[in-house]
Amino acid sequence: MSFRATVLSLYPEMFPGALDLSLAGKARAAGLWSLDAVQIRDYATGKHRNVDDTPAGGGAGMVMRADVLARALDDVAGPEDPRPKLLMSPRGRPLDQARVRALAAGPGAVILCGRFEGIDQRLIDARALEEVSIGDYILSGGEPAALVLLDAVIRLLPGVMGNEQSGEEESFEGGLLEHPQYTRPQTFEGEPIPDVLLSGNHAKIAAWRRGEAEKLTRERRPDLWAGRDASET
Amino acid sequence: MSFRATVLSLYPEMFPGALDLSLAGKARAAGLWSLDAVQIRDYATGKHRNVDDTPAGGGAGMVMRADVLARALDDVAGPEDPRPKLLMSPRGRPLDQARVRALAAGPGAVILCGRFEGIDQRLIDARALEEVSIGDYILSGGEPAALVLLDAVIRLLPGVMGNEQSGEEESFEGGLLEHPQYTRPQTFEGEPIPDVLLSGNHAKIAAWRRGEAEKLTRERRPDLWAGRDASET
Repeated sequence: MSFRATVLSLYPEMFPGALDLSLAGKARAAGLWSLDAVQIRDYATGKHRNVDDTPAGGGAGMVMRADVLARALDDVAGPEDPRPKLLMSPRGRPLDQARVRALAAGPGAVILCGRFEGIDQRLIDARALEEVSIGDYILSGGEPAALVLLDAVIRLLPGVMGNEQSGEEESFEGGLLEHPQYTRPQTFEGEPIPDVLLSGNHAKIAAWRRGEAEKLTRERRPDLWAGRDASET
Repeated sequence: MSFRATVLSLYPEMFPGALDLSLAGKARAAGLWSLDAVQIRDYATGKHRNVDDTPAGGGAGMVMRADVLARALDDVAGPEDPRPKLLMSPRGRPLDQARVRALAAGPGAVILCGRFEGIDQRLIDARALEEVSIGDYILSGGEPAALVLLDAVIRLLPGVMGNEQSGEEESFEGGLLEHPQYTRPQTFEGEPIPDVLLSGNHAKIAAWRRGEAEKLTRERRPDLWAGRDASET
């Protein structure tokens, strides 16, 4: 069973987008994951086929209708569908690498992309949507966020990354930001590669990298550093 | 002067991608912003035109070469170019709405997309790149992150959003997650819209929304709630 993504959007033509190239594109061509992008508007009824309406209580923008979204969701993923139902939303739980790993280990995901004026809260409650935020900023809609979530998940699917080890050593996987990297040429604009990296002493290299990663994390992300301390003590 | 984005990537065909549709696409057609996507490989030299090489000191993956990236960067944005030079990287400062606003108020951005095995650190230092992270997860490369950053910025450019107010009332702009939204139908699967929103009493509606937003922020994002308290006292 390969990972199966279904995206509900007013702009299904944004998919697969960037996911049709590079690693993710090759993996899709190889059948390692699949994608359906579904037009929400196809589930609207009435002569105007409205998917949204003005907010109850007043205010700017439009709110997506619970009834239209429910019909769309129930059609693509009934109650027996084992996949988590995600709503990309800045109100959601911040996405982290642990959630990405868990999603990659599962059967897939149903991803609802809102336009960020909002979704009727009754739909979120009635279908127990998991609200996921990719960061503390506002997008034009959930679509770029869904592309990011899928990209993060797909690279972890079995068979997608050529070099398995590469998935383990990167930022966050050890609770730390990644150490600095260097490669040829040996001297760039007068700056040499740090001596230790050319020493051939693997223990010293590992210790230097660990020290740099810790220093970087302390300086740039005291929040990550604190979280890491708490989990290790 | 409209906002000018230049993206450096090994996959320039990922752009404009989702940014060619919806708000951002209309805004680009209207000349409110422009985008150049530049192939980094065009700046490689030597018979193999390599853009990367193995990490000094050993380890998995490949590291992008400082000399190739320097040639690309210097060609598209010389020292007199006023635009910030960003590197999308999970090691960077987490993107927030304040940085998005500042970027939208500026002349544009030069955005370097790494593949996340890494970029030679000497390039980051020599060109004083601003490392920007869109969240604590690992992507296949900087490209989906660049799409997200540009989407967030573009919607704030003058003339892009039809309804100016909509930009102000959303999550984070007041340091809080957004209150729940409701719209027609009046009853959805037996659940009515909360009475207060139908009361017509604007003061009561505003107070209810504020209370819900505060409750949601406290429950879901104690980090945001704490940060907000600190800035208000």
